[in-house]
Amino acid sequence: MMKKNLFAAFIAAVLLSFSAEAQQALWGGQQIISPEINPDNTVTFRVDAADADTVQIVGDFTPKEMIKTQWGEFEVPGKANLVKGADGIWTYTSEPLASDLYTYNIIVDGFKSTDPNNVYMIRDVSSVFSIFIVGGEKGDLYSVKDEPHGTVARRWYDSPGVGMTRRMTIYTPPGYESSKDKYPVLYLLHGMGGDEEAWINYGRTAQILDNLIAEGKATPMIVVMTNGNAAQKAAPGESAKGFYKPSMQLDHTMDGKFEEAFPDVMKFVESNYRVKADKADRAIAGLSMGGFHSLHISRYYPNTFDYVGLFSAAIMPREDSTGKVYSDIDNTLKQQMDNGLKLYWIGIGKADFLYKNVTDYRQKLDEIGMNYAYVETEGGHTWTNWRVYLSEFAPLLFK
Amino acid sequence: MMKKNLFAAFIAAVLLSFSAEAQQALWGGQQIISPEINPDNTVTFRVDAADADTVQIVGDFTPKEMIKTQWGEFEVPGKANLVKGADGIWTYTSEPLASDLYTYNIIVDGFKSTDPNNVYMIRDVSSVFSIFIVGGEKGDLYSVKDEPHGTVARRWYDSPGVGMTRRMTIYTPPGYESSKDKYPVLYLLHGMGGDEEAWINYGRTAQILDNLIAEGKATPMIVVMTNGNAAQKAAPGESAKGFYKPSMQLDHTMDGKFEEAFPDVMKFVESNYRVKADKADRAIAGLSMGGFHSLHISRYYPNTFDYVGLFSAAIMPREDSTGKVYSDIDNTLKQQMDNGLKLYWIGIGKADFLYKNVTDYRQKLDEIGMNYAYVETEGGHTWTNWRVYLSEFAPLLFK
Repeated sequence: MMKKNLFAAFIAAVLLSFSAEAQQALWGGQQIISPEINPDNTVTFRVDAADADTVQIVGDFTPKEMIKTQWGEFEVPGKANLVKGADGIWTYTSEPLASDLYTYNIIVDGFKSTDPNNVYMIRDVSSVFSIFIVGGEKGDLYSVKDEPHGTVARRWYDSPGVGMTRRMTIYTPPGYESSKDKYPVLYLLHGMGGDEEAWINYGRTAQILDNLIAEGKATPMIVVMTNGNAAQKAAPGESAKGFYKPSMQLDHTMDGKFEEAFPDVMKFVESNYRVKADKADRAIAGLSMGGFHSLHISRYYPNTFDYVGLFSAAIMPREDSTGKVYSDIDNTLKQQMDNGLKLYWIGIGKADFLYKNVTDYRQKLDEIGMNYAYVETEGGHTWTNWRVYLSEFAPLLFK
Repeated sequence: MMKKNLFAAFIAAVLLSFSAEAQQALWGGQQIISPEINPDNTVTFRVDAADADTVQIVGDFTPKEMIKTQWGEFEVPGKANLVKGADGIWTYTSEPLASDLYTYNIIVDGFKSTDPNNVYMIRDVSSVFSIFIVGGEKGDLYSVKDEPHGTVARRWYDSPGVGMTRRMTIYTPPGYESSKDKYPVLYLLHGMGGDEEAWINYGRTAQILDNLIAEGKATPMIVVMTNGNAAQKAAPGESAKGFYKPSMQLDHTMDGKFEEAFPDVMKFVESNYRVKADKADRAIAGLSMGGFHSLHISRYYPNTFDYVGLFSAAIMPREDSTGKVYSDIDNTLKQQMDNGLKLYWIGIGKADFLYKNVTDYRQKLDEIGMNYAYVETEGGHTWTNWRVYLSEFAPLLFK
């Protein structure tokens, strides 16, 4: 029999095999909690860096600063200073924060990384952020609750249109597997630099859908989060390209190739899942480049989707684009309108650099008499907004 | 139409909305590649920390050091120093490394975190490590290749035995969805401090199985990676407990509760997947605590598994344990042997702190005349070994 002290040694040895972090916890080092969300919704961050000269934090809750560039001025998160305590622990406490999911990084003597006391992170292109959630209305919607959960699968499918086997993330709602019913489908597309991991991670899609469905606010639906980069088989690290440094610049970005090959995605989903394969039960939405994709796919296949969502969407193709999908925009848009659809939903933040493009596009829609729903929020081109747009869009579908 | 310079501004603005990392890449900052695997399999690490006094690296390839504790001496990874260049970039180049997956952290002025230029990470309990793969035999086996890929799903199931709905990770092999065949099942269990994310992330299970199956070395099989902590519904961050700091110490660890409730897992899998629900097509294996679970589950249900794998297994229960699953060990073990099984596989590293326990257990098996396969490797209680054990064990199953 393993004796009790042997059991303690077992735990000790397992801990040791992991890390010095664990060793510190074992041998009297400080057990640091960071971030700590206080009762008043201020948030305290703690960093153990006794030998550092400066420790800073930068996140989407720290004071903003402006950056001037050749392309204009942009607002970006600014840095705030942590203060060193007598115990060598640096701390920073934020203002009270509204309920939401927040991201941040820690900067020690100019070295920017994640918070080592917080294992929860999200990658976006080549950056990794530590994250936390302040509870309440929005934060709760983004959190896992004690209620039925859908299944999230990473699955590969053939796309002859781009000549590749490709990876998608697919959410099936609670009860899908035990049901005989057919389900409607939302195709949910990421932005530039994103991939099939973007919506499920940064977008909290599974949590938002689980919660909306449990509250009876959204119809149970399948959500297909495919990879919208025509040159990419899968997210960084998930293909034979191995572990490389991700970048925004990929071939065939917004050149029409993804839109033209989109029927491959639908064909796979409609032949591999119990779905209602008709216009009334198909929605397509996306953020930024994914909004651009949604606009053009729904127009190019003008009798396919009853629900379209443009979240902070890029609107018009590059002037140098020769993609045939962009060759007859006005006519196919009118055709889409004439065919009828139930919802054309546009969301944009007032500070978004695409605000004017979206305003121009709305004017175009007004001119041709296209009905659309329009939601204007504070803020800019951020996941903070895109989670809100998904949360508002999903309850409107398949009613 | 979006003009070409507008398109450049679009990319710039999207990049800006992400991070200062991206800003640096845009405005002439250095594009740092770290880690870089050199042709001779040395690996160069680069850290931008111009204001730091010291930059160090600690990983499972840096020189080892010994730590003395009240429970004995343990070997742990030691720190190596990076050297500052004239450009303010710190570098370190390792010795040539054998093909494998490696983990490491960067330490700047005593602040230990991940490598900000490497987005590939793995969490283990409350620590997060940056990772890289050195190609070749083992490294290739752990890498995604251009070949058919299985599906990986996170799914919830009812476990009345522990009174919870719980989360599992399940791998179905390439071709599963399009086939009508039934498949054998490997139940693959994590160690203490782990959860249903351990094998799929740190263990590279999907890559190993995809590759072994593509090479014809392993029979296509379903791999069920459930959560082995009876007190836990799901991995940290994946339950209504929210984002908390993970710990090793959980209730009901190795007290018999998980083993007793294990039929709930099998029942779910066998009623929700096309599986061959017979002894000849069931395997159970695990590392450390998961090896302990495999030993006791396969013995307690002594006519259920034809294949058992104990990877660096903890062997005997605590003396203070009252779990009824431990009440009749010798008889049920003999019963398991008498019922017959095809493979009882034991793997352990020579430096593992459980080496003696495993040796004692092998002696017990010899005494009762139980056949087993035994693989002894270098090294200790590490994922480096557990990936090897899975790679050697899986090809032996269901032949």
